[in-house]
Amino acid sequence: MGQAEVRVTAAILVIGDEILSGRTKDKNIGYIADHLTAIGIDLREVRVVADIEEEIVEAVNALRRRYSYVFTTGGIGPTHDDITADSIAKAFAVGIDHHPEVKQLLLESFQKRGIEPTDARMRMARIPHGADVVPNRMSVAPGFKLENVIVMAGIPNVMHVMLDAVTPSLKTGRKRLAVEIEILRGEGEIAELLGETQGEYPDVSMGSYPFNREARVFGTVLVLRSTEPDLLEAAVARLKERLTAKGIPF
Amino acid sequence: MGQAEVRVTAAILVIGDEILSGRTKDKNIGYIADHLTAIGIDLREVRVVADIEEEIVEAVNALRRRYSYVFTTGGIGPTHDDITADSIAKAFAVGIDHHPEVKQLLLESFQKRGIEPTDARMRMARIPHGADVVPNRMSVAPGFKLENVIVMAGIPNVMHVMLDAVTPSLKTGRKRLAVEIEILRGEGEIAELLGETQGEYPDVSMGSYPFNREARVFGTVLVLRSTEPDLLEAAVARLKERLTAKGIPF
Repeated sequence: MGQAEVRVTAAILVIGDEILSGRTKDKNIGYIADHLTAIGIDLREVRVVADIEEEIVEAVNALRRRYSYVFTTGGIGPTHDDITADSIAKAFAVGIDHHPEVKQLLLESFQKRGIEPTDARMRMARIPHGADVVPNRMSVAPGFKLENVIVMAGIPNVMHVMLDAVTPSLKTGRKRLAVEIEILRGEGEIAELLGETQGEYPDVSMGSYPFNREARVFGTVLVLRSTEPDLLEAAVARLKERLTAKGIPF
Repeated sequence: MGQAEVRVTAAILVIGDEILSGRTKDKNIGYIADHLTAIGIDLREVRVVADIEEEIVEAVNALRRRYSYVFTTGGIGPTHDDITADSIAKAFAVGIDHHPEVKQLLLESFQKRGIEPTDARMRMARIPHGADVVPNRMSVAPGFKLENVIVMAGIPNVMHVMLDAVTPSLKTGRKRLAVEIEILRGEGEIAELLGETQGEYPDVSMGSYPFNREARVFGTVLVLRSTEPDLLEAAVARLKERLTAKGIPF
């Protein structure tokens, strides 16, 4: 059971000086993490790098070889610091040029809005050779997918429509199911019994997350995850048995 | 001028399955980024990895060799999935044991609170050999600093007091100053003039960040950064000249 399942993994690469300086607080990592978990792709790593070509190239090449997919955000606008498309072309050692369809799309959109198609604006039509366009129904300039690397905008609502657009073309694995158990005790109180239960069910991942709400409400959320509903249910039952035996309400 | 300055760099390593699953939304990266920028340390890279020893070891070793400091968050509690301290010891190939002072601190705190000093709870006294303790005035169990790696809790308010505690011992570089200019135009409108100004002032970093507020308020923030106040001022003046020449208010 579950042996034949293909595990599909992913990494996120956030490209942006503004995240590293603290000026912009990233909201894309959490959003993409939720999305991938929901569709059955295991997010395994995240990196944030500066707007520096060699650092982007190195990160893309490390991550694309290690995971099924790499999702990048940021650096695909019209200004000189938008170097993602060129960096991806370099990482794959392919050429890059104005993509005929995208060029057309941008020209039409600029004309409709009475905007001049300057060289800077037309840079947004530059797509590495061999890439598929990821449509952007929010603001026209698209993302792209080159092999297993999906390149998206950094602005959250633009990234969202690109992620939606690319999702049907992604292969996905079995979804990991999760059960959460909240207790009003510290982690120290349940560390032993959780560790014992983990030992009995090595294939169910078990985590504990302390919380601290308002003034004096503190406790721990126990999270159990597995792709196997029966196994998960058994592990949850065993953990609850142990909590009950120790007189800990849940 | 500015040639003799020591550039101090840093990376953040977030350790946590719960960030990768999307269950917890990270708030530490942005906080640490702001703090480092304010004290004159350049944050250059961030990684998020799972609670897996070999992945933590690999990331720590890659980052500690590349940057002046590595700040880790997460994985230092009492449960079986808290493997950061052991992973750091492994990365440095040093031993790890109960630290006498920390052991004493924890025992006193547990006694005061009427809590049993179980093996699990006492795991929080395990500190790699050669590390300095980073005090935690929030919840006792400390972080630590081993060479250039600073290990902190994942819970934001606990991380904050650890970061404050370690800050006086950090070497810092010259602070990067920033000037922001907000315009109510899209990036396409200023891409050329910004690129030209960047060409004239290669040592001032210039970024542009589109925004989209409420219904129809959109625009771009231009951010110029440098450690040299005079150079920064000159670059800002030049950019404003160009904006004025193009009839763009700021």
